[in-house]
Amino acid sequence: MNQALQDQYSPKSACFGCGPVNEKGLRIKSYPGQDDTVTARFTPEPHHEAFPGVLNGGIIGALLDCHSNWTAAYALMRRAKADAPPCTVTADFHVKLTRPTPMDAELELSARAVEVQDDRATIEATLTAKGKVCATCRGTFVAVKPGPPAYHRW
Amino acid sequence: MNQALQDQYSPKSACFGCGPVNEKGLRIKSYPGQDDTVTARFTPEPHHEAFPGVLNGGIIGALLDCHSNWTAAYALMRRAKADAPPCTVTADFHVKLTRPTPMDAELELSARAVEVQDDRATIEATLTAKGKVCATCRGTFVAVKPGPPAYHRW
Repeated sequence: MNQALQDQYSPKSACFGCGPVNEKGLRIKSYPGQDDTVTARFTPEPHHEAFPGVLNGGIIGALLDCHSNWTAAYALMRRAKADAPPCTVTADFHVKLTRPTPMDAELELSARAVEVQDDRATIEATLTAKGKVCATCRGTFVAVKPGPPAYHRW
Repeated sequence: MNQALQDQYSPKSACFGCGPVNEKGLRIKSYPGQDDTVTARFTPEPHHEAFPGVLNGGIIGALLDCHSNWTAAYALMRRAKADAPPCTVTADFHVKLTRPTPMDAELELSARAVEVQDDRATIEATLTAKGKVCATCRGTFVAVKPGPPAYHRW
């Protein structure tokens, strides 16, 4: 399997959700597949629970947000035929929890771009555990250009 | 100021977002006000960042999700004239990030129920930093009854 997008393009990031150097973060690793789908796997830690045995919805949102953000950055990179993804930020994300997400499972995240424009992409994603979709997410992510005040200031 | 809802009604919870005993969690404290608004304050920790100086969107979602959930539980308790809130779970939440949320500020969460039924409430919430709204959230939270399979299995 190829290198994760985070390790390849943002190895020094300390983002809570996806920064490789954030030891207290979720350190999501997102891998592009053969088609346009980007996938990741995540095993919850005990302090991520909501109730005993059930994963917290905020952590579910954090996983889906960062994974979808990387899916958007990758889609924009491919559309622009660029060598690296742009810096993208979340405009919005809508999480639906369809059943409890168990703590004792490796979770599967799957995301794909459903609409791509020059500077933004809309992403649909699912979180699956033990073969069942436990959560879905639809979000829009926007590329921001380097240099103040726009950069990191969408 | 009165006791926080979490400390009063769920002091042993280990929820990542709002459990008083989760030392690695966000430990949100939600306080009902004189009107129907429920408020909380939160100071980000360094590992909650997205970029340097900017709070991660997943953490923002986690704050808004748990705070809104407690706002829903409190609204349902008042509607039912009950002595304690029901156990509520998140059905969905939609986070909009309108500007970067700074790390170097005490954040203010404010939420209120905009629709309340017997077993669910829809909540609108804002996250404000330095006097500016940085994020909004609208979510629906559902009461679940004790006893398997319904309890914690909405």
